[in-house]
Amino acid sequence: MRTAIFGQGYVASILNVGLERIKKGEIGYEGVPLADTLPLNIEDIEIVTAFDIDRSKVGNKLSKVVRQYWDGNINFERDYIIKEGYRDYRGSGEEIDLEEVVGKLIDEYSKKDIEIFVNLITTERAEPFMDVREVKRAIRKNDVDRISPAQLYFYSVAQYERPTAFINCIPTPLANDPAMVKLAKETNTVLFGDDGASGATPLTADILEHLRERRRRINSICQFNIGGNTDFLSLTEPERNLAKEVTKSSIVEDILGYDVPHYIKPTGYLEPLGDKKFVSMHISYTSFNGAEDEWIINARINDSPALAGLIVDLIRLAKIAIDREEYGTIYPVNAFYMKMPGPREAKSIPKIHAFERLNEWVNALPKAETEEIIVAERVEQN
Amino acid sequence: MRTAIFGQGYVASILNVGLERIKKGEIGYEGVPLADTLPLNIEDIEIVTAFDIDRSKVGNKLSKVVRQYWDGNINFERDYIIKEGYRDYRGSGEEIDLEEVVGKLIDEYSKKDIEIFVNLITTERAEPFMDVREVKRAIRKNDVDRISPAQLYFYSVAQYERPTAFINCIPTPLANDPAMVKLAKETNTVLFGDDGASGATPLTADILEHLRERRRRINSICQFNIGGNTDFLSLTEPERNLAKEVTKSSIVEDILGYDVPHYIKPTGYLEPLGDKKFVSMHISYTSFNGAEDEWIINARINDSPALAGLIVDLIRLAKIAIDREEYGTIYPVNAFYMKMPGPREAKSIPKIHAFERLNEWVNALPKAETEEIIVAERVEQN
Amino acid sequence: MRTAIFGQGYVASILNVGLERIKKGEIGYEGVPLADTLPLNIEDIEIVTAFDIDRSKVGNKLSKVVRQYWDGNINFERDYIIKEGYRDYRGSGEEIDLEEVVGKLIDEYSKKDIEIFVNLITTERAEPFMDVREVKRAIRKNDVDRISPAQLYFYSVAQYERPTAFINCIPTPLANDPAMVKLAKETNTVLFGDDGASGATPLTADILEHLRERRRRINSICQFNIGGNTDFLSLTEPERNLAKEVTKSSIVEDILGYDVPHYIKPTGYLEPLGDKKFVSMHISYTSFNGAEDEWIINARINDSPALAGLIVDLIRLAKIAIDREEYGTIYPVNAFYMKMPGPREAKSIPKIHAFERLNEWVNALPKAETEEIIVAERVEQN
Amino acid sequence: MRTAIFGQGYVASILNVGLERIKKGEIGYEGVPLADTLPLNIEDIEIVTAFDIDRSKVGNKLSKVVRQYWDGNINFERDYIIKEGYRDYRGSGEEIDLEEVVGKLIDEYSKKDIEIFVNLITTERAEPFMDVREVKRAIRKNDVDRISPAQLYFYSVAQYERPTAFINCIPTPLANDPAMVKLAKETNTVLFGDDGASGATPLTADILEHLRERRRRINSICQFNIGGNTDFLSLTEPERNLAKEVTKSSIVEDILGYDVPHYIKPTGYLEPLGDKKFVSMHISYTSFNGAEDEWIINARINDSPALAGLIVDLIRLAKIAIDREEYGTIYPVNAFYMKMPGPREAKSIPKIHAFERLNEWVNALPKAETEEIIVAERVEQN
Repeated sequence: MRTAIFGQGYVASILNVGLERIKKGEIGYEGVPLADTLPLNIEDIEIVTAFDIDRSKVGNKLSKVVRQYWDGNINFERDYIIKEGYRDYRGSGEEIDLEEVVGKLIDEYSKKDIEIFVNLITTERAEPFMDVREVKRAIRKNDVDRISPAQLYFYSVAQYERPTAFINCIPTPLANDPAMVKLAKETNTVLFGDDGASGATPLTADILEHLRERRRRINSICQFNIGGNTDFLSLTEPERNLAKEVTKSSIVEDILGYDVPHYIKPTGYLEPLGDKKFVSMHISYTSFNGAEDEWIINARINDSPALAGLIVDLIRLAKIAIDREEYGTIYPVNAFYMKMPGPREAKSIPKIHAFERLNEWVNALPKAETEEIIVAERVEQN
Repeated sequence: MRTAIFGQGYVASILNVGLERIKKGEIGYEGVPLADTLPLNIEDIEIVTAFDIDRSKVGNKLSKVVRQYWDGNINFERDYIIKEGYRDYRGSGEEIDLEEVVGKLIDEYSKKDIEIFVNLITTERAEPFMDVREVKRAIRKNDVDRISPAQLYFYSVAQYERPTAFINCIPTPLANDPAMVKLAKETNTVLFGDDGASGATPLTADILEHLRERRRRINSICQFNIGGNTDFLSLTEPERNLAKEVTKSSIVEDILGYDVPHYIKPTGYLEPLGDKKFVSMHISYTSFNGAEDEWIINARINDSPALAGLIVDLIRLAKIAIDREEYGTIYPVNAFYMKMPGPREAKSIPKIHAFERLNEWVNALPKAETEEIIVAERVEQN
Repeated sequence: MRTAIFGQGYVASILNVGLERIKKGEIGYEGVPLADTLPLNIEDIEIVTAFDIDRSKVGNKLSKVVRQYWDGNINFERDYIIKEGYRDYRGSGEEIDLEEVVGKLIDEYSKKDIEIFVNLITTERAEPFMDVREVKRAIRKNDVDRISPAQLYFYSVAQYERPTAFINCIPTPLANDPAMVKLAKETNTVLFGDDGASGATPLTADILEHLRERRRRINSICQFNIGGNTDFLSLTEPERNLAKEVTKSSIVEDILGYDVPHYIKPTGYLEPLGDKKFVSMHISYTSFNGAEDEWIINARINDSPALAGLIVDLIRLAKIAIDREEYGTIYPVNAFYMKMPGPREAKSIPKIHAFERLNEWVNALPKAETEEIIVAERVEQN
Repeated sequence: MRTAIFGQGYVASILNVGLERIKKGEIGYEGVPLADTLPLNIEDIEIVTAFDIDRSKVGNKLSKVVRQYWDGNINFERDYIIKEGYRDYRGSGEEIDLEEVVGKLIDEYSKKDIEIFVNLITTERAEPFMDVREVKRAIRKNDVDRISPAQLYFYSVAQYERPTAFINCIPTPLANDPAMVKLAKETNTVLFGDDGASGATPLTADILEHLRERRRRINSICQFNIGGNTDFLSLTEPERNLAKEVTKSSIVEDILGYDVPHYIKPTGYLEPLGDKKFVSMHISYTSFNGAEDEWIINARINDSPALAGLIVDLIRLAKIAIDREEYGTIYPVNAFYMKMPGPREAKSIPKIHAFERLNEWVNALPKAETEEIIVAERVEQN
C-alpha cells in the first residue's frame, strides 16, 4: 500500500513513527481499531512521500522533520524528502496556472507509484462546489480564489489516471461535497471523509446515544477543547474555528432526534498543553419523575496518535475498496472514522452502531464475488 | 398490569409518584427507555400493594410513607396500606414455619389479584441454590438460615398458581441461579434479573466498549460511588458491600475480553448527598504509538428515579412475556436492564448493543403467531 | 443604610430577596462573609430605589421584576418602583444634555435620601479617564461618546452634595481610574471597586498562592466559564468579553510573580444553565524532581447569590467608611471583595491574605478616635 | 547537615535522586517551599545512611535500591549501603533486648556522625504513650508489643547523646504524644511531626478556609484517594487505614469551627497508578439566599516527590532549630509541613496562614540574640 501524505505535521509524523515501531516490533496495535482483523497487514503500509509548504520542512528528510514532534530515537527504512506542496493562494492576487500545478503533482504521484493519499494539511476554510462543472471551471479559469488546497489536492488525485483513494482527515467538505463524490466515481477514486473522528466527539456521540436509549431529556451540553498543537493555533483564526464548529455540532441533533442548546467547539490555544489536549464536557438531563442529573467529563487526550491510529485502518480500508472497485464515498467507513461522514445527506450515528456497520462492510463479499455467487445459485436452482 | 412491590423504600416510592404524575399528565416519559413505543401503556400499570418490614411503614398508607422520600403534593388514586413482609431470620435462631409464611403471602397475592412482582428490598447477601431440590429442601425443613428474604419472596411467587412475573432489582442471584430459573420455568413464572442497571455502571459498559472498538489498551479503571440513601447505608456493612462489588466488576472482563486492574464499588455513605449520589471515575489507557490518555468522569445521579424509570418498562415487558408464555428468564431483557444479566452463564454486553437486542425481542412476533405464519406460508407454497 | 441600585437585574433581585428573607428570619447569614461580626446589622440595610433602562422593568414594582429571577413567594416591605436610568448613548449620535441628566438623577437621590449606591448594570466596555479634567470636559461638552453609563452614574453620585459611597461591582474601571479616585476624594465619596469577586476567580487566586508557597512551577492554567444569565449573554459581544478577560487574567502574574501561559475567561453562553454557571479549570505544574502533577476543578456556582452576599458586606463597610470619613478608594476592602482591586497601581493578592487585611481594617479604630488616643497618651506621658 | 533515613522506600529514594540532581544543576528548586530563601543551602544536605527491613534492600547500595523507583541514570556521590533497621515485633512473641537494639542503632548514628533523622517507614498503627515513664518502662521491660518501630527509632535518637532532630513524616503520633515531646526536650532533640502534609489534604485545608471566609455553609465533603505505591498497598490493611482516617479528618472541624458530614480517606489500591495517585473531591455548600453550589476537584499527584520536596526544607529547618537550641516540637514548622501538627493540643490551621507563621518563625531572631538585644535596649534606656 504505497501511500503519500499531504501535510507532514504532527499527525503524519506520529503515523510514520508508529508504523515504523510496529514494523520493528517495538509496540503493539494499540489505537488501531481493526488491528490484525483485516486481510491486509499493517506492516505492508508504506508511506513513500509527503507534500508540505512549510519552509522548515520542504527539502528536508522525514527523520529531521519528525524530531519536532517525537523525542525518541527512530530510524526510518524509507527516509523520504518532503516535497513542496500547493499553498493557499486565496486572496493573494497571484496568477497561478492550476493545470500546470496539477500536472506536476501527478508526475510526482506517478514517479513514486502512489495509490493512496492521506490529507492532513492544517484546517482551512472551504466551501463545497456542489457541481462538478464548477470544479472544472475553477481549474480551467485558474480561479485560485475559489479552490482551497485540500480541494486542489483531491482534484489532482482524481486526475491521476489509475484507481486511487483519497482519505480526507480535515473538515474541508470533500466527501460532503456532491461534486467531489461524483468526480470520485467518474475517475475511479475512493474518497473517505470528512474530518477524522479522533478526540472527544466520538465519545460524545456514544454518550448521547446512551442517554437517548434511556429517554433522558438532555437540557444542555457543553464541550470545551483546548490544546497546544498547530491545529489549535490555527483555530485562533476565527474563520477556521467556524469550520470546526459546524462539524462538531451536527451530531447532537443527528443522534438525539431533537436539538438541544449546546456549546461544542475548540475553545482555545494553550501552548504548554502541546498535543495532549484538555477536554471538559458538561451534560445536564432530566430523568424519571423530573429528577435532574449531571455528568462532567474531563479528559487529557493525545490528539495526533488518536488520529494516526485511525489512519492505519483507513489506508487498508482504502486499498480494500480499490480492490473491490467501490469508487465514490463509502458511508459505512466514514460513519465510524469521520466526524462529518459523507455523503452530504448522511447523518452522524452513534459510533458503537457505526462500528457494527463497518464490520458488516468489511466482512461483506466484494461485489464481483457476490454476483458470481448469485449467478451460481440461480444455475443451481434451475 | 396489577403489580405488587417488595420493599416500599425510595425506589418504590418514586415509582409510585412518577406513575401517578404521568397518569395526571404532570410529567412526560423521561427516564422510561421504551416510553410510548410498547403496545402496553404506562398509564395501565397499577401498583396495588406493597410488603415491607420497617415498623414505621407497615400498616401505614402509601401516601404517608412516600412523604419520607418526596416533598411534593401527591394524591394517590390507590392509596394502599403497606403489608408486613418476610424479614431476614438468618442467624436469629427463630423457628419459622416457611410453608405457612408462603401460604399467607400467596393468600395476599390472590386476594389482590397480583400478576407482576417487583423486588426492591434492601441489598442483602445471598448464595445461589444451584439445584431446585435444595430450594425445596430449605422450605420443607424450615431452614431459615439458608434462604434469604428475596429468595423466599421469589419462591412464594413461583408457588402462586397462575402465570406471573418477578422482577429482581437487587443483587441477590435469582436470574443468575439455575435453580430459580428452572423453578420459574416449571411454574410458569417470568423472572427478570439481577440488580437493576441504573447508575454509572451501564455508562461504564458503553465507555469500555467505545475504547475496545478503538483498540485502546486500558491500564486501570476506578469508579467511586458515594451516596446518602439507605442503599449506601446498608453497604457500610461489609458483607453487603461485597455483593455489590461482585456485581459491578464482572463487566470489565466481559466487555474488554481481558482483565484490567480496577476498583469499582460503592465507596461510602454520606448522608447529606441523599438519593443524589456522587460518582467519580478514572480511566487510563494506551493509544497509538504508546500515547497515554486519561478520562475522568464525575456525575451527580439521582439513584431512585434512574431505577424507577427502568421498572416502568420492566413491568410492561413482564406482561408481554406472560402473554407470550415465555417463562424462565429472558436474556435480551436482562442484558439491557440489569447489571448482572441472567442466566448465570450469560455475559455483560455493552448496553448500546443490549438495546438493539431488546428491541429485536420486543418486535419479534410471539412464538405462537410465528408458528402460525410458518404454517400459513408452507400452505401457500404448496 | 439607605441604598440605591443601578441595574435591577439578577444580582440586585437576589440581593433584595435575600435581605428580605434574612429580615423575616427565613434564612441565616450564609454567603455573607462578615455576617454578624460587624458593628452594623444586616437587618438595617434598606434598598429604597433602583434605576434601570429595560422597558419591561422601568415603571414596574420591584416585586414584579423579581419574579423573573426568583420563584418563591416574597412580600417586600418596601416594594419600590423601578426608575428610568441613563442608557448608553455611545455611537448613537444623539444629543444629550449631560448636566441635565446628572441633575435629575441627583434630585432622585436627594428625594429618597440615598447614602449608598451599588452599581450592578450589565458589563460594558469603558476606558479610564486618568485625569479629572477629562471627566469634567466630557460632561461639559456633552461628549456622550466618551462616557459610559457606569462612569456617568459615578459622576452623578460624586456631584450629589453629601458624603456617599459608590460600590462598583462591574469591570468598568472606576476604582482603577485615578481620575475617579481623585474625584471621589474631592467630593467626600467612598469608592469601592472594581468587579465583584464572586465566582471561580477568588478560588483561583488562593489556589495559585497555595502552589506558589510550595514552589511548584506552574506550566499552564485554563479556566472556562459558561452560563446562561444576561451577564454571559452580554459577553457574546466580543468587546465586552475583552473587558472580562483583562480583569481576570491579571491575577496570575500578580500572585505567582511570574507569568504563565493561561486561558482564563468567560467562554460561552448556554441558556439552560441559567444563573448556575459551569466552571472548569485545569492547572498543570512541576513538583520536586521534575514530577508533573495536574489538577482539574469543576464547579457549579450560582453567580448572583455569590455576588449578592458580598454586597451585603460592602454596603455596611461603605457606611463604616463614610462614618470614618475615609474617602476615595480603600484597598483593604477592594482586595477581598473585588476581582480588580483599586487603586490602579494595586495588585491582586491571595484572597486569604486579603481577608486578614480586611479584618485589620475593620478592627482598626477610626482615625479620629486613634488621634484622640494618641493625644491622650501624650498627655499621660507628660 | 548529615542526615539518616529510616525507610529507604519511594519518598526517600526520590529525595536522594532530587538532591543529587539539584547538586548537579540538572533541576531547579521546584517543589521545595523555601527554596533559596533560607540561610542554609539545599546543596549542603548530605544523606549519609539509611535503615530498612526489606531483605531486597538491606546490604545493597542506594543506587541499586533507587532503581525500583526511578528510571533515569543517576550517580550518587555517596552511594551508601542500606543498613538493617528495627522491624515490628508486635504480636510476634519474640524476645528482644530493646536496650541492646537501641545501643547498636546509636553506635551506627555515632559512627556516621548523624545529626538529623527522617522517618519514612511505612504507615503503622501506634498508640501514644502520654507519659515518659511509660516509654521508659516499655524499653526496660522489653515490651515489644507496646512500642512501634517509629517510636523505637525516636527513642534511640533521643538517647543518642548530642543535639539532634527527628522529622516524623508518617502518622505515628510522636509530635502529638506529650511523652515524646517531653522526652525530646529533656534530651535536646528537635521533633517535627506528624505525617507530612503532601497530597490533597493541604489543598483541602485552604479550600475550606476559602469557603469559611465567605460564610458558605458546607453541607458535605468527600475526598477519595487511590494510588499504586506501597503506602496505598499498606492501607488495604484496615487498621493502618484507620490511622490515616483519623489524621485527615480532623482538619474539617479545626478549620470550619463546626463539623460537617465528611468522607476523607485513602480509598483503595490500584497498582497501575503507581506513585501518581488519583484524587477526587466533592464539596457541596449553601451560599447567599439558600443557593446550593458544588465543587468537584480531581487531581493526579505524584505522591513521593510532593513529600520529598517538603523534607528538603524540614532538614534545613531542623538544623536551624538545633542551632537555636529550640528543642521539643515547633508548632510553626509543623503547622505548615504536617497533616497532624504537634503538639497534641494544637489544631490544624489553613496552610496559607501556616505559611505566614512559618516565615515569621524563620525570620525571628534566635532566642539568644533576642535576649541580647533586649538586654542592650534596657541598658540603652537607662
